[in-house]
Amino acid sequence: MAVYTDVGFEELEGLLAAYDIGVPLTFKGIAEGVENSNFYLQTDRAAFIVTLYEKRVRTTDLPFFLSLMEHLAGHGLSCPQPLRSRAGAQSFTLKERSGAIFTFLTGVSLRKPDTVHCAAAGRALAQLHEAGRDFNLTRTNALSLAGWRELADATRARADAVERNLGELIGEALGGLERGWPRSLPAGVIHADLFPDNVLFMQEKVSGLIDFYFACNDMYAYDLAVMLNSWCFEIDGAYNVTKSKALIAAYQTTRPLTPEEQMALPVLMRGAALRFLLTRLFDWLNPDPNALVRPKDPREYAKRLRFHMKVKQASEYGL
Amino acid sequence: MAVYTDVGFEELEGLLAAYDIGVPLTFKGIAEGVENSNFYLQTDRAAFIVTLYEKRVRTTDLPFFLSLMEHLAGHGLSCPQPLRSRAGAQSFTLKERSGAIFTFLTGVSLRKPDTVHCAAAGRALAQLHEAGRDFNLTRTNALSLAGWRELADATRARADAVERNLGELIGEALGGLERGWPRSLPAGVIHADLFPDNVLFMQEKVSGLIDFYFACNDMYAYDLAVMLNSWCFEIDGAYNVTKSKALIAAYQTTRPLTPEEQMALPVLMRGAALRFLLTRLFDWLNPDPNALVRPKDPREYAKRLRFHMKVKQASEYGL
Repeated sequence: MAVYTDVGFEELEGLLAAYDIGVPLTFKGIAEGVENSNFYLQTDRAAFIVTLYEKRVRTTDLPFFLSLMEHLAGHGLSCPQPLRSRAGAQSFTLKERSGAIFTFLTGVSLRKPDTVHCAAAGRALAQLHEAGRDFNLTRTNALSLAGWRELADATRARADAVERNLGELIGEALGGLERGWPRSLPAGVIHADLFPDNVLFMQEKVSGLIDFYFACNDMYAYDLAVMLNSWCFEIDGAYNVTKSKALIAAYQTTRPLTPEEQMALPVLMRGAALRFLLTRLFDWLNPDPNALVRPKDPREYAKRLRFHMKVKQASEYGL
Repeated sequence: MAVYTDVGFEELEGLLAAYDIGVPLTFKGIAEGVENSNFYLQTDRAAFIVTLYEKRVRTTDLPFFLSLMEHLAGHGLSCPQPLRSRAGAQSFTLKERSGAIFTFLTGVSLRKPDTVHCAAAGRALAQLHEAGRDFNLTRTNALSLAGWRELADATRARADAVERNLGELIGEALGGLERGWPRSLPAGVIHADLFPDNVLFMQEKVSGLIDFYFACNDMYAYDLAVMLNSWCFEIDGAYNVTKSKALIAAYQTTRPLTPEEQMALPVLMRGAALRFLLTRLFDWLNPDPNALVRPKDPREYAKRLRFHMKVKQASEYGL
């Protein structure tokens, strides 16, 4: 975690003149996220996050992300709310990068969420899905079936060097998903990356959801599968069905799953595991020499995918 | 700038139980300093900085640094004040590193300080010297004459690959300093690294001094020379004598320089420039593969040293 673009206070000061947010008192780069440069800004009125978008976030996607956060915050979800400049602009340009200023959310993300946190986060995901219902921009999920096929092709030759039979696992899983990926489940705006790093807690309550830069339109239950993959495996690789049960049940108090969604859970779990396996494998095989973070180990998700490949029915996930 | 050691909130939580500082609300790694890992911690009572010391700060030096900051803060200087645990401990161990918790100082450091900032910072340096007068621990300056000789020897073979005739410049400057380095100027605790990054401002007033990890016992006027070197050169390499005059005059309102100190200024300026030239040159030639920051260009200080080599008398610095 690091700051990629160095911003001096004097550079910020010029920018702030365009906003009505008070006199700056503190400005510090913060080590958060792997895609962008983030700064903590405290003024005499409130605290804010200033984000500069590095190359991974496409400028053409920014209006979707920023409008979505504005929409969700306006519909009662606790997420970073982009501030508009006096002239009404949602974003700015600084050092050849697009950027935005957001409200600062209090809370801490957890490395080892307990069952009670899993439940609270599951409920928050359903609230996000509900709050996004009438949002009118759309963004295709670039990291679904077609994207996975591209990543599988791009990594096939070297996959087995990372782990024995990894190429075969990917080929088998992807083939199955291409044949059996659900096409008509309830869909809308999803977060698509709601890992524990992206949920802030104050004690046992969710105080905010962050990092909407993979948000897109896709199946709601796929978003749930991403969460179950990232919240319910223990460090030893075991699937914790108590956490899983609690997370799903809490989700359903706000948005009950349809019978079709419930049936599809095993295939969605394989898809979600494959998505993170493939992006991590690609980054592992193609490390960015300028990156300030180490690529994440893809084998963690290979192990999860192998687990899902043996699951026969949704009830094994505590449904 | 980056965080070297990753600390999860749960790891922090256990530590906080030993301190009486309230309930944690926010905890974020911040990109500050090049030597340590720093975290911003907000509780329901106040904001704090949590520092973990990486290899460059020797554990045996920590009592000096921490006691010094405690002493200076107790004597009215605005600097990070280390908190003591309920048991009275000044530091802790986490992830095999020593660490400490400090009060958080509001303010921003400037990339391009104006004359008014130079004056305010100069006054703050004199206040630091006065506040440290009766501090009873001592620490030798490892980066003075003997240290420079070691660094010159370690970099000689490759110095000219960095800049033409750099080895000769270093040899000539160091020889002169070894013959003429002052021995009997007023001395005491100095900061030894009071660059603009280490001075926080609120508008035109200094709100705090930070980063005491080069502090040691040495000549006060050498500390002033370090500041003049780092605050008074413009980006184009010109020495700004207006800033220099203002900084020295403001220093003298709190602690007037003796005639001997004034006379010695040119040699002290060469010494201070050589010190940063040598450490930067060494780091440039021996980059740490694990570092998350790029080494600073040593040539900036070679240029400053060449300027000082031509100075004949103290008045050229605006004295």
